This record gives sequence, C-alpha cells and structure tokens, in this order.
Amino acid sequence: METFYPEFSPRFAGFMAQLRGRKIAVVGHARPDGDCIGSQVALARMLRARGHEVVCLNPDPVPRRLEFLVGGLTFLRPAGFAADDHVAVFVDCADHDRAGQALKARFPAPFGAIDHHLSHDGFARHNFVDPASAATAEILAGMLFDNGLPVDAATAQALYVGILTDTGQFRFNSTSRRTFLLAAELLARGASPAEAGYELYERETAGKLQLLQRFLASLRRECGGRVCIGLLPDGVFADTGTLPEDTEGMVDYARAIDGVDIGALIEERPEGIKGSLRAKDPAYRLDLVAGQFGGGGHACAAGFNVKGGKLDSFYPRLVAALEKQIRTVDAGRR
Amino acid sequence: METFYPEFSPRFAGFMAQLRGRKIAVVGHARPDGDCIGSQVALARMLRARGHEVVCLNPDPVPRRLEFLVGGLTFLRPAGFAADDHVAVFVDCADHDRAGQALKARFPAPFGAIDHHLSHDGFARHNFVDPASAATAEILAGMLFDNGLPVDAATAQALYVGILTDTGQFRFNSTSRRTFLLAAELLARGASPAEAGYELYERETAGKLQLLQRFLASLRRECGGRVCIGLLPDGVFADTGTLPEDTEGMVDYARAIDGVDIGALIEERPEGIKGSLRAKDPAYRLDLVAGQFGGGGHACAAGFNVKGGKLDSFYPRLVAALEKQIRTVDAGRR
Repeated sequence: METFYPEFSPRFAGFMAQLRGRKIAVVGHARPDGDCIGSQVALARMLRARGHEVVCLNPDPVPRRLEFLVGGLTFLRPAGFAADDHVAVFVDCADHDRAGQALKARFPAPFGAIDHHLSHDGFARHNFVDPASAATAEILAGMLFDNGLPVDAATAQALYVGILTDTGQFRFNSTSRRTFLLAAELLARGASPAEAGYELYERETAGKLQLLQRFLASLRRECGGRVCIGLLPDGVFADTGTLPEDTEGMVDYARAIDGVDIGALIEERPEGIKGSLRAKDPAYRLDLVAGQFGGGGHACAAGFNVKGGKLDSFYPRLVAALEKQIRTVDAGRR
Repeated sequence: METFYPEFSPRFAGFMAQLRGRKIAVVGHARPDGDCIGSQVALARMLRARGHEVVCLNPDPVPRRLEFLVGGLTFLRPAGFAADDHVAVFVDCADHDRAGQALKARFPAPFGAIDHHLSHDGFARHNFVDPASAATAEILAGMLFDNGLPVDAATAQALYVGILTDTGQFRFNSTSRRTFLLAAELLARGASPAEAGYELYERETAGKLQLLQRFLASLRRECGGRVCIGLLPDGVFADTGTLPEDTEGMVDYARAIDGVDIGALIEERPEGIKGSLRAKDPAYRLDLVAGQFGGGGHACAAGFNVKGGKLDSFYPRLVAALEKQIRTVDAGRR
C-alpha cells in the first residue's frame, strides 16, 4: 500500500502522541452531512480502540439516514454535555463558527481540526487541511492507513460513507485516483457499498416519491428555457405526508435538464417562501441572486427565505432577478 | 499494480495472438447500456490501436447519452454491415440471442465473448466470463491492464462508464475492492468522473422528467407492500416525446422505497410487454422470475419481453409470479 498523505501522516502520528491519556470531544458542524458524521464516527472509533474516552458533539442531531453509522458511540448536543476535561478535535468545519456558538464557546481553543474546505481558516492548534481532497473522511482514512491505526469494519464503513456522500457518489471533480484507492482499501477492511447504498438511497418513503412527482409535474421553463423552476405550494407536505427536509436533492432534477443553466425550487410555507437555486456553471453567481432576497450561499448552490411571501406574487420577482443575472453573465462573456 | 484476472489474462493474451491480422466485429446487445457501449468502445479502441480494422455492431442504436464515448469509431446496425470477413467478439451478452436474430445469424459461431452475467451459457469459442465481476467493462479493464494492452484516455473513460453504470454508481453489492482499484487505475489513465457524471446524469431531456413523473404517478404496491410496480402504458413515449431508452434507471425509484423488496417497471409497447425487475436482496433470484416470461438476467436485476401482451392482462400474472417467489424465499429463510 502506498502512502496517501506523506505530508500530514507523520505530523498526525505526533498529534496522536500528544493526545495520549486524554478524554476527547470529536466536534462536528451544524446540520451534519455524511462526511461530518462519517468522519466523527471513524475518528471516535479509532480513538476508543486506542483506549481514549470519547464523545461526539454536534449542534444538530444525527440525521435519520446516517444513524446506522453511530453504533455504540455517544453523540450529544451541547446542552447534554457537561464535562470540562475533554480535548476537542473539530472535523469537517471550515471555521470555528460552523460548530455553532455553544460549541465554539465551550472549546475556545480547539486542539485539532481535520477538514477539506477551501475556506478553512486554520482555527485549531493542529490543522490537517487539504482542499484537494474530496472529503474530510478521505484525509482521515489516508492518515489512519498511513499510520497503521485501527480501522475495523464499522470505522471503514463510516469513512466510506463520508467519501461517498461528499463526492456525490464519486461524481464531483474532486474525485481522484487517491479517492478510489482509499475506497478499495476501505472495502478490504469491511466497508460495504451495498449497505451504504441501501441506507442512504434505498430507504425513501413513498411520500417522498409522491413529493418528487408533484415537483416534476410543476416544472416550468423560463428565460428562453435556460431556467427551470419547480414549485411546491403550501399544503403539499401535508398532502404527501412528508417534511420540508424531504425536498433535499429535488432542485437537482430541475438543473439536470440539457440546456438548462439554472434550476430552482420554490416552496410556499405558512411562514413564507423558501427558495433553492442551482447552476451548472459558477459564472452565474447564484449567491448574488439569493442575496437580493436576503439569502446567500455558493456560486453554484444558493438559497433564501422570504417571510410572508406568496407563490403567485413571488414567482415573477424571481424570474426577473434570474433573467437580469443571465443577461449580466452573457454580457460579460461577449 | 497487482494482477486483476490471473486466470483470464494469460488466456486473453493467447486470444489476442489468434486475432492477429484479422478484421474484427465487436458485437453488443439489444437496447445497449453503458456497460455494453463502454465495453465495445474500449475493446474496439484497443484493437484499432493494435492495428486491427474494427467495426462495432448492435441491433439497436447507441443511446444519445452514451454518444460521447463513440469518438471516431464505427457503430453499425446489422442492415448497414455487409462485409463477411470479420471475426466476431461479443461483449456483455449472456447468450447468443442477446445480440438479436440478425447478428446471431450473421455470426453463427462467435470467436470470443466477454461477459459477467450469471446465466452466460458459453456460446462463443473463447469465453471470458466472470459473474463475480460488477461489469463486463471491469473484466475487460482488468485483462487490458494485466496484459499491458493500450488504454488511452478515451478507452479509460469508456471502461469507467461501463463500470459506473453497471454498479449503479458503485452501489450494487457486486462492487468490490477490485472494482475500485480498477477505477483508480482508469483515472490515472485519464478517465474523468466529472465528465461522465455530466454526460450521464446532467443532460436529461424535459420529456424524460415528464416520463419519470408519469412513472411515479403510476406506482402501485403489491404483495403486502413488498413489491412496487410502475406502469408505462402504450402511447406514453409519444405523449412525452421520449424513447424507450429513456426508461433507463426508472425502475430503481420503485425499489428505493423503504419496505419494498422488489421494484418493477412494466412498459406496454405496440409489440408487447417489456418488464424490468430489481430486488434489494439477491435471495429473490429475479433471473428465475424473468425466466418464467422468457427473460433472464441477474439475481437482483432481470428483465423480459412478452410478445403481444397487454398491460391489463399481464399485470396480475406478474404479481402472481412475484408473490410466489416471495413466498418461496420466505419459506427458505425460516
């Protein structure tokens, strides 16, 4: 087996030596995703196998579909954690704030951070940060293998899920030869792609498929076909027995149409309008469009909330904003 | 690099030696998928690089979304191919019939076959068949690497797409350590996961999303909820401006529901019924169920065609066959 992180791994060995005998808090971020929970589980399991007392902390609960990774580990929210003798290692957090104000205040000077975000600001004492890696779990897997640290089947599965989810199932351009070599090694240690696929993608509710059907039936093309907008009117969640979290990933269907540059989802809720925007090309700077409605995000993925808004009156405002943005981007390309 | 197919690869070297100086027809199956076209492209490119004159033959055209793989190769339907001095190598065909009657008659004694189907019947003179492999492209990639045969970036991409599509994006339980090691090596040779993801999954037609919407609206639960069946009645392709190839992947939505063991898609066409079956667990042996309707396939993924069938009369027959199979499997588990 080759060395995956020749720069980090010797430093990680030193980091592990400094942790010896300490109780450890493995801290993740708000609204945790597969890479966050997977990295927390893997790091915590490895530390526990080395004799550490470990607790995992997050500002939000572990999502239902990631619960299969947790096993016998302790995941707590800040309010449920009273001890004051733990050293903190933050995973998948670009900055100190990502873990939420309570955990930031609780651990004002984190001992370690493992992360792959471009915007990572080196907030911990020991930072293991590589933006060229597809996932935090990729960096962690590489450092564990490089150092011969314990990776049992459940740890391998947690790391595999982190990599799988943060690469969009090995699809994003962050997916590299190293990503696949690590996946191969994780399978050799007992990770199960079939189990991960089942837990993550084959446990949909019938209601979620009904919601998707309603969303697809609502799709409208605007701006000469370059924008595709799906609408979920007030009451659709009750009709289908779904929750607002069930819209996850739906806007990607609008974007996936050939010729569409920008996909959008507008949800009408009792408290107002929630919008999600996705572009194929970062040139569309959707963070700026979302900003016009009090929201924000990334160039290709942004969102906003408009209090008290109604679908009929809001829809033309959004189309106008997107039309203007497309004209601006087109002009810049000429 | 390790040896991927220690049993096949020396034999494949001998096979290549016997092909020396010959014109070659690389034959694929009806309604070709990513593994079929990817394997045909890769084999044809490698043979061309070794100086062979090569043509690819299929009973049906290359699907639109796989056209990006074809490059400068010649893909013909049987009627467009008149030459009689070609040696035939069949890829991804479980039996001689899978290539259609015209190509079967044209090549009554195929020289070679590369395939990964459990039901492969060894119809060629030289068969390279491994049902433990996730894709025909996996076997082919392994044999090319083992023998140091030419794999340029376009060949690597074709093999990558074959593996990607036949593993459901590395999700099916056929996905192994070897699958990932080969993916890593294909990336090193120039395969691009981001391009593959864009071409395969971000170039949908608006009609395909309408077709998906119609499919989702049609879903019915049977066998106490353990079976979910979607129906596409005659005329739906014309209504939505789609082609039969646009149903690819749709049956997976039926299977993805929590509590569903078997998903099914029944298409009513002018010439009869086409059925697709998908199980979460290979214990359901869907190849045996499909076999009752003159079809076949894998334990978790099988299909069939019933000439002259109508939706209303066929539906209860399928439900009865699935009900019986579930009862048999349940009995075996007790």
